[in-house]
Amino acid sequence: MIVLGIDPGITNLGVGVVEQIGQKTQMLHAEVVRTIHEDPAPKRVGQLYRAVYEVAAAFKPDAIAVEEQFFYRQNELAYKVGWAMGAVFLVADQQNIPLFGYGPPKVKQALVGYGHADKDQVAFMVRAILNLKATPKPTHLADALAIALTHCFFSRVVGLAQRT
Amino acid sequence: MIVLGIDPGITNLGVGVVEQIGQKTQMLHAEVVRTIHEDPAPKRVGQLYRAVYEVAAAFKPDAIAVEEQFFYRQNELAYKVGWAMGAVFLVADQQNIPLFGYGPPKVKQALVGYGHADKDQVAFMVRAILNLKATPKPTHLADALAIALTHCFFSRVVGLAQRT
Repeated sequence: MIVLGIDPGITNLGVGVVEQIGQKTQMLHAEVVRTIHEDPAPKRVGQLYRAVYEVAAAFKPDAIAVEEQFFYRQNELAYKVGWAMGAVFLVADQQNIPLFGYGPPKVKQALVGYGHADKDQVAFMVRAILNLKATPKPTHLADALAIALTHCFFSRVVGLAQRT
Repeated sequence: MIVLGIDPGITNLGVGVVEQIGQKTQMLHAEVVRTIHEDPAPKRVGQLYRAVYEVAAAFKPDAIAVEEQFFYRQNELAYKVGWAMGAVFLVADQQNIPLFGYGPPKVKQALVGYGHADKDQVAFMVRAILNLKATPKPTHLADALAIALTHCFFSRVVGLAQRT
């Protein structure tokens, strides 16, 4: 099973692709797509869309897993993360890939074992599980891989209902 | 000049196309695109994208004008309006149409003459300016046409800088 994990954002969007074979997982690809704050929103969303579209077309994932967080500090931030999510949703729709959303506690539960783990522990576990030489940086990379691994974890341990 | 006005929303997205010739404006098209709450988000965003894409391809607008509102009551609402905006931004990017955003006070100022007008006054003015037999309903229709007319107004009276 191949999973495309997304840490959504309009300025930095983390993309991580992992493959699970049995109990083992490996990293196939990871990148951060960056857009420029001063550019018009259509251009920025277009860039994110094309980048995610190309990764999905190249790796043909069985699922897209996204970090979902409803409690942003500001409405404007939630609104702009929504723009990026719109682009990711379109890729899922157009390439007919099931999409799953996980909140931060689910990610922590899947990777560290409890929902109140801190970000460093999550990044450490991403490195350990994927057998990487260093902790992935920036955070958006580690987060995208963590989301993909979260989907691998839950698809092993529980039945999955597609959501969002 | 042809303007495509959008009242963004994930469940109801208002679309209104107006043409301005000199000081006169006429309605070319108006519809509300509806999606089903229970459907997966990718399907809903895909529906909105295709509907807006087709209207833009059919009418070849010189501009897309969207209602922008940063102060939603809830983060979750702002987030979901953002999904719809992502789809609209992609259409603007892919068809190379300049996009402009207007907050509610700008719409009221353009149509009624002052920024604190109420919604009924805006709808009444949409009807009057476009010489319609009845006030457009539901509200999403009137709002989409109002946004398109707002862009016509500001492009007549002031120089425009593309934004969002």
